[in-house]
Order: sequence, then structure tokens, then C-alpha cells
Amino acid sequence: MQPSFRPDILRLRPSPLAEIAALGRDDPEVLALWFGEGDEPTAAFIREAAKRALDAGRTFYTPPRGLPELRRAIAQSYRTTHGIAIDPERITVPGSSMLALHIACRTVLAPGDELLVLAPFWPNLRFAAELAGARVREVPLRRGETRWELDVEALARAVTPHTRALYVNSPANPSGWVMNAAEREALLDFCRSHRLAVLADEVYERVVFSDEPAAPSLLAAMEEEEPLFAVGGFSKAWAMTGWRVGWLVHPPELAPAMAVLAEVHNTSATSFVQYAALAALEEEGETFIARLRARLVHNRALVMELLGDHPRVELLSPEGAFYAFPRIAGIRDSVAFCRLLLRRSKVGLAPGSAFGRGFHDYVRLCFALSPERLREALLRLRSALDDRRP
Amino acid sequence: MQPSFRPDILRLRPSPLAEIAALGRDDPEVLALWFGEGDEPTAAFIREAAKRALDAGRTFYTPPRGLPELRRAIAQSYRTTHGIAIDPERITVPGSSMLALHIACRTVLAPGDELLVLAPFWPNLRFAAELAGARVREVPLRRGETRWELDVEALARAVTPHTRALYVNSPANPSGWVMNAAEREALLDFCRSHRLAVLADEVYERVVFSDEPAAPSLLAAMEEEEPLFAVGGFSKAWAMTGWRVGWLVHPPELAPAMAVLAEVHNTSATSFVQYAALAALEEEGETFIARLRARLVHNRALVMELLGDHPRVELLSPEGAFYAFPRIAGIRDSVAFCRLLLRRSKVGLAPGSAFGRGFHDYVRLCFALSPERLREALLRLRSALDDRRP
Repeated sequence: MQPSFRPDILRLRPSPLAEIAALGRDDPEVLALWFGEGDEPTAAFIREAAKRALDAGRTFYTPPRGLPELRRAIAQSYRTTHGIAIDPERITVPGSSMLALHIACRTVLAPGDELLVLAPFWPNLRFAAELAGARVREVPLRRGETRWELDVEALARAVTPHTRALYVNSPANPSGWVMNAAEREALLDFCRSHRLAVLADEVYERVVFSDEPAAPSLLAAMEEEEPLFAVGGFSKAWAMTGWRVGWLVHPPELAPAMAVLAEVHNTSATSFVQYAALAALEEEGETFIARLRARLVHNRALVMELLGDHPRVELLSPEGAFYAFPRIAGIRDSVAFCRLLLRRSKVGLAPGSAFGRGFHDYVRLCFALSPERLREALLRLRSALDDRRP
Repeated sequence: MQPSFRPDILRLRPSPLAEIAALGRDDPEVLALWFGEGDEPTAAFIREAAKRALDAGRTFYTPPRGLPELRRAIAQSYRTTHGIAIDPERITVPGSSMLALHIACRTVLAPGDELLVLAPFWPNLRFAAELAGARVREVPLRRGETRWELDVEALARAVTPHTRALYVNSPANPSGWVMNAAEREALLDFCRSHRLAVLADEVYERVVFSDEPAAPSLLAAMEEEEPLFAVGGFSKAWAMTGWRVGWLVHPPELAPAMAVLAEVHNTSATSFVQYAALAALEEEGETFIARLRARLVHNRALVMELLGDHPRVELLSPEGAFYAFPRIAGIRDSVAFCRLLLRRSKVGLAPGSAFGRGFHDYVRLCFALSPERLREALLRLRSALDDRRP
């Protein structure tokens, strides 16, 4: 007799990150640095735009690929930020960027396929790839002197006849790596020569600590016929994590399929949220991003000051996104460490083992929260490290 | 060389319903009866609850399975409406009820499996099942004298060694069939004897034209260990189509897997929308549903009056949901008919062929809109039928 549920589904268990967070989520004393979000609500001008849309009765279904004006505004933002022309016909807003990535995985990966992933990497991607039937093959970034670096030789060694695609997340969660232009060229040469599709997770593209408006995008370096999926979203740069709105840029031939995939996963994205997303793309949104970046630069300095020079810590200064990913001498099991730290010091971190093999002595912390809370959390962590117990 | 995209995805094309709607979506003269929603925005008390949540800064991620207080309130609503106790641990709010149904399909169906579906049925279900790798086998409801009826013999004939599950949508889109208690027993006997999982799409459960608070639910007739997934949602009874919030009731052993599936499809449902959903479940929500039902009873009478006695029309009075599904003599191709009707009469209907094999001479119309607009649409349709041209 067959089981009632698929064995691969029955076996699913939350990542170690979710496990740790569940332990302390409801404890008000915990300073939570485990999730990828700050501690301030979305900016008032965006919330007001949602409220205006609600007042105007924008509560109906929208087209499955999103409001045409939002898709046009996203296209325009690529022009402003990267100087590139993206046809709105290539843009689908199915709901969250997580859903967009899910749909991209589902479009490219079939059972038996392998997906190359630059590690450390975000745990939900593994689930999305495996749900499509594919196997994830981790290829570590190289820890350089001052930054993480792309290791093209390691990529070449990992290719098999089953390799179908490569997942690249830049700016990267959790490492803070930002793929530079030279690395982008090398990565593209590699993918083209092996005929791999590219899943580019660019949700942190506006969160960089340079003078550039955004990190280098694969969209700017590839032709529209090439098998590229670029995922963007409002959660990170505009502090809209709870809103669930993001987008997928895809080859034009896939537009009809994207309409179906968007519809059968979500019907359409939340209507009034799409109007709020439109507001985020206007000028006030740029002011918000500039302020966020200034805060993050400040917070990054705080992290490097309070944590970077600790004798147990090895930490590269992040180039983008808003995570620090320190290696901590003496940790043998990052999950046990995080559990203990949560209980004793009331600080919530994400265990390194959630982000790939070989990161059992790392932890991730999000530094997007207010400097005061961040400082307090770092002091608690530092004191725990001094203790040498956890 | 392998293609860059999965052939099954490249082949996806929108349903005939989406095709027709795309033709006239932007034409303000069109009276659109093609989608499953009315023409009034969500009630003010629900919109105000969302605005209060926005003002209170409820813009962060929530737990992947939804706010605990919302899950408890949904459990409580089953107690009120059906007199049954559902453990909130069995309830997951992943985002839209479409996503909930998608997750249910993904949990039960594997490639090669067959899903029995009572036809006529909603086209998105076919996509969801096929994306899970399964094949849909349609089993028609029987057109009785006064209502559609379950045909258990037809179900029995359709079972094969590959049959894994049965999808039942009651109250049904598009037929208006409401499974009565006797039919529920027969259906359950059938599923149990063939060891089939049950996918119960109960999103219209509160939209019935009887004195009961809700249609008979499979949840009330099955034990919690049985392989039942019941999907509910706010879109239909509370006129919240654009909000994207619904739920899935599942066996308790699947709770950890549901946390992962919710997270990797959507991270979590939109935060402030969940607070609005909470408001919908309070007393004012019941008043709203009572008013909606009264309007629908009125509108149903209008449909039966203006359409039911037309010599070209065969139409059973719907017992629930808010669709009429007339068979129209002389139609050979419902898509061509709907296209012509849209162009000549500016009325938007859904073609019967979207809802299964053998419905090429049917159309579906949604009667949830305001009586004035509905009357005008019906008069236009009637006049087109008199013409005998389309």
C-alpha cells in the first residue's frame, strides 16, 4: 500500500535557523539578530500609500503577473539604477520574491538535475531546489584576505553531466560578498561554456556600501534570450519584509508560462501592496535607501569594532547585504552554541550550519537593527565569547 | 543538449478563462462576470483593521505557519460554524488559499499519480495537480432534475491503480453544487475503501443559500489522522479576493513539513493582512456574510428569472457559491461564443470549456456583483441569445 503523503514531504524539517528562532521568538528579553530584517516598521510613506489604496478600494484581484504600472516602474528602476532597458514583458510580480525564486527553480530544475550553489548560502534555496527534484551541490566561496572571493576552479570541479543551473546571490546572505565586475565576467564565462541557466538572487542589490547605486547585476551583462532569472524584491532595501512583494525578470518567451505559474501559486499578488510597492519606487524611496545605507555603514563599523578584533573571531567586513558571518574559534556545533547563547545571553543568532557544509563554527547576525540594540547584542555576544564557555 | 527550461513549463498556456479576460480586462464598457469576485471593495471594517495594523507597525515577518492568534481564531470559527474542535496545530496560513491548495497537491501527489476531480471544476486545480506531476481524471457530476448530483458509480469506474486522491470542491465552482450529508457519506465511503487522500476545497463553505451557517464540511466527518486536506479562505465569503489570505487544515503529523512548505513558497503570509483576517472572523464579519448571502439570494433569483426560462438555456439553480453555469443550445465552441459576446455585447463570461471536457456549450457567470450591473449584463446576454448569432 502506498503512503498517503509523499515521503520527501513527510521528511521535511525546518532549518536549524528556524529551529533556534522558534525557541526564543516569544521572549521579549531576547535581542533577535537571526532574521533578515531590522527592528523599525516600514517607512510611513509606504504604509500611507497602502492605506490610500485601501481607501480607494484596491481590494480586487489584479492580473496574475502584477499591475502593469508596477511592472513598468520596476523596468524603469533598472534603467535608473543600472542604465539598462528591461522590457516590462520580462517582469512578473507573482507575490513574494521567495515565490519568484521558487517559480524560477521550478522552471529550470527537473528531478535528477544538479544546481551549483555558491556557499555559504541561504537555507530556503536548498528547499526550493530540492522540491523541484534537484540536488544542490555546494561550491564554497574562498575566504580572501579582505573579502570573500569567487573560486572559479572550484566551480569547474563541481560540474557534472547533471548540472543544469547555478544559483548566485549577490550581495550575499550570509557572507556579505558582493560579486564584482571581474567575478561577474568569470562567472558568466563559466555558465555559458557549460550551458548553465543562471538563477540570480539580487534581492539585496541596493544594499551595498560603495558609491554605486547598486551591486553589479547579471541582468546588465546577459542578453534577454539567455537563460537568466533575476529575482528582486522590496523586503530588504525598503524594509518591507512583512509585505510579500517581489519580482522575477525572465526571458521573454516565458511570459505565458509565468502567467500560469503566478496564477496557480497565488492567483495574483496582494492588490493594495502592489500600490505601496509603486510608492517605494518613487523618489522618497531613494531617500529611504540612502538613510538605510548610512545606518548600515554605521552598524557595520560597530560590528567590526566590537566583534572584529575579538581573539576568537575571524570576520571579513561585509561588502553588501546586512549580515555579519563571523567564524568563532572553539565552536564545534553552531546550533548548540546558538541555543546556549539564546538561553544564557538572550541573544538570537543564526547557526552557521544552516548555511552549508563546513560552517559549523560560524554564526550569522543581522545588523539592520537600531544601533543601540545592536550594540547591546554585540556586547552580550562579546561577553559570552570572553567566557569561553559556549 | 538539454533545453534551458523544462518542457512542461514551456508548454504552459493560460486557461481559456484567462484568455478571454485578457481580451477585455481594460475595456470600461465591459460588464465582467468572468472572475470569482463582486464589484464592491472589501468591507470598511476589514480595511480599517488593516490600516490599524499598518499604523501599529505590523510590517515584519510572521511565523511561517501564520500568526498563532489567527490560527486559533480559525479553529474557533470551525467550532462556531460546524460545532467541531480543530486543533490550531492542524491549521497553517501560508498566504492565499490558492497557495494552500498548491501545497496540499504537492504533499499528496507524485509523478504518475492520478487525481480524481468532480467536473465541472475550476481550471487552476488542473495546473496545480499537473505541476505536482499528477494526471487529472475528470468524473462528471450528474445533472439531476433540480440539482447537480454526486455520481458514485462514475467515481468507481474511474479508479485505477494509480489513483491517489480525490479533489472535491463544495460549494462548487462553477456548478453551484453543494454536497449534501448523504453525498458526503457516499464520497467518504468511496475514498476510504480505495484509500484515497481527500483534497477538500471549501473556500465557498459559508456561501450557501440554506438556513445552515455553512455547507457540510469533510472536516466534520473525518478523523484527524485521516489523509484529509481542507482549504478555506477569506476571499469569497468576506470579499477579500485581492488580499491573498487563506488556510489549510492538515493532519497533525504534517505540521513540521507545512512550516517548511509555507516558508519556501512565501516565507510567511502578509503580516498586516493577517490582522485584517482576524477582524473578519469577529462578529461584524457574520453580519457581512448575512448581507452577502441576502444579496446573492436576490441575484440568483434575478439570474433564474432573466436567464433560466430562456428557450436556449438549461440552468440548475445554484445551491451555493456565486456562479451560474448555464448550458446554451446552439453553442459549439464556448470560447468563440465568449469572444463574440465580449466584442458585440460587452459582457464578459467564462467559457465552459475552461471547466472540463464536455462543457463546450456551457458558460459560467459570476452573480456576486451589484444587482443593477448584473441585471444589465443578463439583459445583454439574453438579447444576444435572442439574436441566435453568437
